[in-house]
Amino acid sequence: MNSILSNLSSLREKSPLVHSITNFVVMNNTANALLAIGASPIMAHAHKELDDMLTIVNTLVVNIGTLDEYWVKSMLLAAKKANEKHLPWVLDPVGAGATPFRNETLTRLLAFHPAVIRGNASEILAMAKENVTSKGVDSTNSPKEALEAGKRLSVQTRSVVCISGKEDYVIDGSRYAVIANGDALMAKVTGMGCTATAMVGAFLAVDNDPFQATVSAMAIMGVAGEIAARKAEGPGTLQLHFYDALFNLTPNQITDSLNITQYGN
Amino acid sequence: MNSILSNLSSLREKSPLVHSITNFVVMNNTANALLAIGASPIMAHAHKELDDMLTIVNTLVVNIGTLDEYWVKSMLLAAKKANEKHLPWVLDPVGAGATPFRNETLTRLLAFHPAVIRGNASEILAMAKENVTSKGVDSTNSPKEALEAGKRLSVQTRSVVCISGKEDYVIDGSRYAVIANGDALMAKVTGMGCTATAMVGAFLAVDNDPFQATVSAMAIMGVAGEIAARKAEGPGTLQLHFYDALFNLTPNQITDSLNITQYGN
Amino acid sequence: MNSILSNLSSLREKSPLVHSITNFVVMNNTANALLAIGASPIMAHAHKELDDMLTIVNTLVVNIGTLDEYWVKSMLLAAKKANEKHLPWVLDPVGAGATPFRNETLTRLLAFHPAVIRGNASEILAMAKENVTSKGVDSTNSPKEALEAGKRLSVQTRSVVCISGKEDYVIDGSRYAVIANGDALMAKVTGMGCTATAMVGAFLAVDNDPFQATVSAMAIMGVAGEIAARKAEGPGTLQLHFYDALFNLTPNQITDSLNITQYGN
Repeated sequence: MNSILSNLSSLREKSPLVHSITNFVVMNNTANALLAIGASPIMAHAHKELDDMLTIVNTLVVNIGTLDEYWVKSMLLAAKKANEKHLPWVLDPVGAGATPFRNETLTRLLAFHPAVIRGNASEILAMAKENVTSKGVDSTNSPKEALEAGKRLSVQTRSVVCISGKEDYVIDGSRYAVIANGDALMAKVTGMGCTATAMVGAFLAVDNDPFQATVSAMAIMGVAGEIAARKAEGPGTLQLHFYDALFNLTPNQITDSLNITQYGN
Repeated sequence: MNSILSNLSSLREKSPLVHSITNFVVMNNTANALLAIGASPIMAHAHKELDDMLTIVNTLVVNIGTLDEYWVKSMLLAAKKANEKHLPWVLDPVGAGATPFRNETLTRLLAFHPAVIRGNASEILAMAKENVTSKGVDSTNSPKEALEAGKRLSVQTRSVVCISGKEDYVIDGSRYAVIANGDALMAKVTGMGCTATAMVGAFLAVDNDPFQATVSAMAIMGVAGEIAARKAEGPGTLQLHFYDALFNLTPNQITDSLNITQYGN
Repeated sequence: MNSILSNLSSLREKSPLVHSITNFVVMNNTANALLAIGASPIMAHAHKELDDMLTIVNTLVVNIGTLDEYWVKSMLLAAKKANEKHLPWVLDPVGAGATPFRNETLTRLLAFHPAVIRGNASEILAMAKENVTSKGVDSTNSPKEALEAGKRLSVQTRSVVCISGKEDYVIDGSRYAVIANGDALMAKVTGMGCTATAMVGAFLAVDNDPFQATVSAMAIMGVAGEIAARKAEGPGTLQLHFYDALFNLTPNQITDSLNITQYGN
């Protein structure tokens, strides 16, 4: 709990540069969420400038949502450079399992050791074993169903694995945390999962432990989502109140609402 | 009327996967509108994965707003596959008539038999005859002026043609419906036309008759737009109340407000 | 002051077509802002149609935020054509100084004589001299620190230079205006600077003097931002109230709030 509060405080103070190579649908959302929480977003994908960009940014977010050949190369160049520079990065495997092109791209990206992989249950199931197919980008499984697969994926990749949904599971090998915050209405706003990934990217810049960084990001997403949901009349108003809630979030709001359980050592 | 209510009910129950190849400006809007009404949006355009995607989705939306060579090929690949699989798809001819590149692309897309073509009056006029030029993406004609052109286009293409504007005309050969709902403020929010097209894409998944599917989509757009306009103080607040209205829409709200007239048999 | 009011009135009456080649993050925002203030936005970047588009539009906006090789060529084709046709255009040098690729692209674009260059202080400093590096896309300098650099850049390029930030400086050689409107919360919404550039693009269509056009755009941004900030509880609500404020803006609201000082002749 204390690390969540101090991470939020550090984030607002340091305003780290978070480089995102993400999908067209959510670029605006994720930039706004990063600004609202106190980070400084940058989006750039030109092959010619990725090496230069990676020298000035603090962390990297890679999200394959609307991938194509050019963008896959951008993602690989950026992930490779981040890995070389020991810059932590987070992978969002949008639509994992939906097509061989996505699966192959994910395999190539995993070679560059993401600090964190965040997806919904179907995506994490698809990444952990070959014979699961997803239904597009929305999950047809609950996070709990994917827990064992997430543990296996975490051990295989040595990455922290985050399965988000009704509850969020953050897994680091044998230890894991369950965060039971957030609101069902959040699933009716496009890109909330991608926004969670972007938030992980921001917290990776202020906490050297990817597990604590991910827990911080998911806790803050959940608490801000609950605050927004109380003011919202539907998904439209939810989204804007969510940015306001991120921006205005206080330590008391977090400690009053956070519902987190840790397992393992 | 009954088919509109039952279509909405089916849509919310089945949550069909709607694949959109659409323009950069409206991707976020249309994804949010699809989620709010109960569909499951997916956006993907990589040549390598379109065949795979088209095997899991229920319907396809093609919108040429920010086309370029790569995206045109994506649109053609997806439309071809949809046609082969007898998957209904809807075409949004954004900026038809503005440039030869747009006109040629539309001609190539028409070869794959869209179930529905939805545009503003200028776009439908441009698609129906060669010698009309459009003023960018906003219409300089009223829907009524385009009615005869729309009928001709519907007969030529065997597609349902929807002309949206102050009133919406949905045309299927000799029969047509006029929907006099919506609010003038909707034209001040970017991508409301594109959102209407996306909604048609969603309803194509639950009604085998493209005419009834299109009438359902336009009726629900109009009624939700009116509800949102009553709460809005301008185009900014309109947009978010619109998503809320779609999400919360009840059968009573539809039957109380719907202003629809059918002509022909 | 009078020219600001008459420019706004002209803009709403003429609804000029503003062509934007801009970044993926802000396309939706800038289209909505252009619609709200009364302009007609169009976004198109295909090499094959730029010449045709440039024959029907009134002004051009070029924003390099998410540039890549294809889009750079689009920008160069459009700027070249605009220059040939004596169509005024505005350049937004997002991230100037961050990478050599951005700097080279900006040098190539400057050959086509933008009427206006609008950036934050770090970007204008980077454009005026080689040895300044930027921190991504957010400014680490105040507009006042960049004033002398802005004057030099204006003389070198014969462009109006606008440095936006806490205060906005609009510079035309030796004369300049300082606009002390707006609200700090605007910096927490992504793309507000890009939106300012789009607004300049709109006003270039109704005022032959790029200096007055830019002053009008920045004044209206600032006043609308203040109105929105008074209603907002954070960056989420700010953004939508901003569109409403642009749409509903009255001459009295402008004259009551505008804080502008002119220097030089």
